[in-house]
Amino acid sequence: MSASVCDFTFLQGVKVVDFTQFEAGPSCTEALGWLGADVVKIENPKMGDPGRRLRPGQPDTDPYYFHAFNANKKSITVDLKSLKGLALVKDMIRKADVMIENFAPGAIERLGLSYDVVKAINPSIIYAQVKGFGEGSPFEHNLAFDMIAQACGGTFSVTGDKNGPPTRPGISLGDTGTGMLMAITIVGALYKRHETGEGHRLQVAMQDAMLHYMRINFATQGLTGKAAERGGSKVPGVSNAPMGLYPCAPGGPNDYVYIMTSRANPDHWDRLLKLIDRQDLIGDKRYLTPADRVEREAEVDEVISAWTRKHTKLDAMKLVGEAGIPAGAVLDTDELNKDVTFEQRGIMQTMIHPVHRPFKMPGWPVRVDGKATRITSSPMLGEHTDQVLSDWLGLTAQAVAEMKREGVI
Amino acid sequence: MSASVCDFTFLQGVKVVDFTQFEAGPSCTEALGWLGADVVKIENPKMGDPGRRLRPGQPDTDPYYFHAFNANKKSITVDLKSLKGLALVKDMIRKADVMIENFAPGAIERLGLSYDVVKAINPSIIYAQVKGFGEGSPFEHNLAFDMIAQACGGTFSVTGDKNGPPTRPGISLGDTGTGMLMAITIVGALYKRHETGEGHRLQVAMQDAMLHYMRINFATQGLTGKAAERGGSKVPGVSNAPMGLYPCAPGGPNDYVYIMTSRANPDHWDRLLKLIDRQDLIGDKRYLTPADRVEREAEVDEVISAWTRKHTKLDAMKLVGEAGIPAGAVLDTDELNKDVTFEQRGIMQTMIHPVHRPFKMPGWPVRVDGKATRITSSPMLGEHTDQVLSDWLGLTAQAVAEMKREGVI
Repeated sequence: MSASVCDFTFLQGVKVVDFTQFEAGPSCTEALGWLGADVVKIENPKMGDPGRRLRPGQPDTDPYYFHAFNANKKSITVDLKSLKGLALVKDMIRKADVMIENFAPGAIERLGLSYDVVKAINPSIIYAQVKGFGEGSPFEHNLAFDMIAQACGGTFSVTGDKNGPPTRPGISLGDTGTGMLMAITIVGALYKRHETGEGHRLQVAMQDAMLHYMRINFATQGLTGKAAERGGSKVPGVSNAPMGLYPCAPGGPNDYVYIMTSRANPDHWDRLLKLIDRQDLIGDKRYLTPADRVEREAEVDEVISAWTRKHTKLDAMKLVGEAGIPAGAVLDTDELNKDVTFEQRGIMQTMIHPVHRPFKMPGWPVRVDGKATRITSSPMLGEHTDQVLSDWLGLTAQAVAEMKREGVI
Repeated sequence: MSASVCDFTFLQGVKVVDFTQFEAGPSCTEALGWLGADVVKIENPKMGDPGRRLRPGQPDTDPYYFHAFNANKKSITVDLKSLKGLALVKDMIRKADVMIENFAPGAIERLGLSYDVVKAINPSIIYAQVKGFGEGSPFEHNLAFDMIAQACGGTFSVTGDKNGPPTRPGISLGDTGTGMLMAITIVGALYKRHETGEGHRLQVAMQDAMLHYMRINFATQGLTGKAAERGGSKVPGVSNAPMGLYPCAPGGPNDYVYIMTSRANPDHWDRLLKLIDRQDLIGDKRYLTPADRVEREAEVDEVISAWTRKHTKLDAMKLVGEAGIPAGAVLDTDELNKDVTFEQRGIMQTMIHPVHRPFKMPGWPVRVDGKATRITSSPMLGEHTDQVLSDWLGLTAQAVAEMKREGVI
């Protein structure tokens, strides 16, 4: 463990019964786990969370997706379709602070764990649900995955070339973006419960959550009265130049630097011209004001590109940044992975797993008193069944063995 | 106020001294405000938060950006560079639970409000900082805006056409995505403080926060050992077809539907062929398995497109969805804005402002006990100076008037 890493204890003692799968739910409970909560995944004994991508009888060659969203959790297996299995999770719910699920619409009710049932068992529980579409939406019975939520939530419509088709943002905002909003609300509900002892039902829809991340675009719509557009790597509606992505040496697919001169700071343009040895253009009437430069944006971009093409993206970022102009190299996962400063700061950590290869992955990026929270291994399927049933419910080894024989767990 | 809206009280009584500006910080404190916290923006008397985009002497024609990230807050004006102004905010900090800032690196220290100073005034305060790059990063002194953080955090590298340049995801994930991770951590710290009474310093960097949203891409890198790629609207590494964006009638820039057949559910392909009246292809050896269809993806996509082009995106979404196959229309801000079901459910609400035009905007998407939290107006610059100085500090109207005369507030 690096010196910059410790175990966060903000949510120490908070018990979470976690029925979530794939990413929207698991990203939420992983955040709770990283803050110190005791998160127990309830998984079916055969395959577990489908995010495990287990292929029965074949070696488990792709555990990375599961690792990424299930660090710092425990796993127990329970057959929820057996009466004894259902009774067992109800006993756990009685002891829990939070229950969370992101099954298909109607599934948790069919399992016999609707909010009314759970509330009757434990009136002070925080009962959290993540769905694709909201209750009351015309699509409330539809399944959704990240791509569906992003398409219906607007993010495709503002991503991609101005004259090209809508494009998927390459990050799973529909899932993790939603999970984070639920996590904030769950911790808020726990905070209030200190005072009131009251439970609540929390619900979020992935489509609705996308609107939260689209607020700049809704602000643009407020101004123009029209649908917000896409603009490649420009920001539509921002009337300044130069601003955008410029090609760098040696010309690989991600060899670009983002340079952003500010409309509010007229010095940026002159400073940039000086840096790139085009002092001849300082004061040139063709490019004097932001409006002039927007009108001749193609020319302006070529002036910058002629210089950036002669530098690597990291050199360009450094030189432009040192000249006091915001700049950022386009980095890919391989470059980020190899940059040791992330590991030194605890932002990336290597998950050590009892079976799988070590996996370097991003952890919780918020540092507390200078330290990052430690990543522990994602659980093997059912790894903690005995431990949790003993710790939470006081079951004896004999009782657990009996349930295993019966196929309940 | 719609019947589906109420005032959330999870963070009632939590006092936040908010020095944030633009979006990464304000999105965080707005989330706290939506959960019921008393958030007071400390703004400079001349221009306020630069996110207000005020142009002195000119009418305020673009308040939407500010509205979107500053609902449910109060505003007071204080000249932090005057000794009396600094003493005043220190008095507020003494009464506060949370202080948060996202100034340029070093600025809060130069103002005389470093963590050491603030901790000495109020040892139990949660002191939160949002920066572009992390302490210890080679770029820690650099400025960052959303685009810079996204470029350096990897999201550009995985967005856009497979053979085209990196592309900016059209949402401000660098800002709001970061703000949400800080909000989770702040509320977690408040939860723990009930028990310990201890304050903490929280720090997040926008670049680091992007890695959190890139975990699918890091999982792909874990599997392949290579940088995660971009794939237009396909998901690189997912080996199934059909899956992607299909063009719809009448052929406008956002007339597309995302259709996603599942590798795990072989019925999807047959069901889709039946729906589009291509039963002749059911069992066709060329398209039998997911691997076959990936190999002939261009042909498969054309089979689907021939049908989708004859339907609107909403009809296609409905018909494909009813056939049990995940599908989602690409919706833009105008279409989302006009869909009354968002307003009926409290997900979109109209901000009523004392001066500006009403603005329909997305609110907090997580519902509590079936209700959404009410959006109240973003504050006018200094609107709550008198009220807050009286409520928080017990200052008399005379004392406040005196400070106004002196230009302190």
